[in-house]
Amino acid sequence: MGQTFSTVSVASQSQQIITRIGQLLTANGLTISCAESCTGGGLAFAFTSVAGSSNWFEQSFVTYSNTAKQTLLGVEASVLLNDGAVSQRCVEAMVQGIAKRTGANVGVSISGIAGPGGGSEAKPVGTVWFGFYLSDQIVTVKQIFDGDRDSVRSQAVAFALQYLHDWLVENYQEAL
Amino acid sequence: MGQTFSTVSVASQSQQIITRIGQLLTANGLTISCAESCTGGGLAFAFTSVAGSSNWFEQSFVTYSNTAKQTLLGVEASVLLNDGAVSQRCVEAMVQGIAKRTGANVGVSISGIAGPGGGSEAKPVGTVWFGFYLSDQIVTVKQIFDGDRDSVRSQAVAFALQYLHDWLVENYQEAL
Repeated sequence: MGQTFSTVSVASQSQQIITRIGQLLTANGLTISCAESCTGGGLAFAFTSVAGSSNWFEQSFVTYSNTAKQTLLGVEASVLLNDGAVSQRCVEAMVQGIAKRTGANVGVSISGIAGPGGGSEAKPVGTVWFGFYLSDQIVTVKQIFDGDRDSVRSQAVAFALQYLHDWLVENYQEAL
Repeated sequence: MGQTFSTVSVASQSQQIITRIGQLLTANGLTISCAESCTGGGLAFAFTSVAGSSNWFEQSFVTYSNTAKQTLLGVEASVLLNDGAVSQRCVEAMVQGIAKRTGANVGVSISGIAGPGGGSEAKPVGTVWFGFYLSDQIVTVKQIFDGDRDSVRSQAVAFALQYLHDWLVENYQEAL
């Protein structure tokens, strides 16, 4: 292609934590799937940057529109109507949906407002909700990130990786 | 997060071509979906790096395993058995599947060997098959990229963007 830049890239520092996540998943016979909205596939792209990720990563959904969240993940229309796509109830339903549809043991859902548009007083740009599913437990977390669209999306992926890593270490520390 | 690097990123040069792709799609009332294997969501992540991409991008699948290609996209087991996941027939079936399952007017499928493992004499590391679906036409293309895993994946996304852009311009040049 003659290009001197990387069209899409995953930082080598991040590949280290992904390698550790992969080791924890593999050692415990777990697989992971994602249901991504604002990060648009960035978390799946990060996971698969590591060789051997096919041992613990099989599939993932990018559900960008509300319709996709309903059709692919089974999010109820009432959740989207009453709470919106960027909400605790939505990421909870998304992560339940991804686990159910894919049979993965571990799931991550991400829905947020990357900007520059779409923010409000109640949900400013940078607001991102995360859902984590691990062995039938679901945890939801909200973060508000500073920065532009690219930065919010990158920080959201970084947060998901760190949270997932720490949770796996806590629950499966015997593995490594 | 205190990070000084981007966990995942899309080059600003690439965002220019994505913006043009988005304009072409929007002007013609088209939506796009991807079925990604070796790029693992990188193309969807690239598309959604542009604000307003929700006008033309609704959903996407990362089908990394053979099972996911069968279950989510309807790829026949015989295709995977006889031709393998990295083949013309597989990307053809993948892009047919993504168009059918999502209702998108435009589809892109990518399946390749990013390495470092998985290569053979017949299919060396860097071999990537692409399927493009546009208004009931399907085109398949094979490329062999040099470089490491990150580079192959980045080049594959760059190739898909350029090919898609050129094809849209050729078929919908009246739009801009």
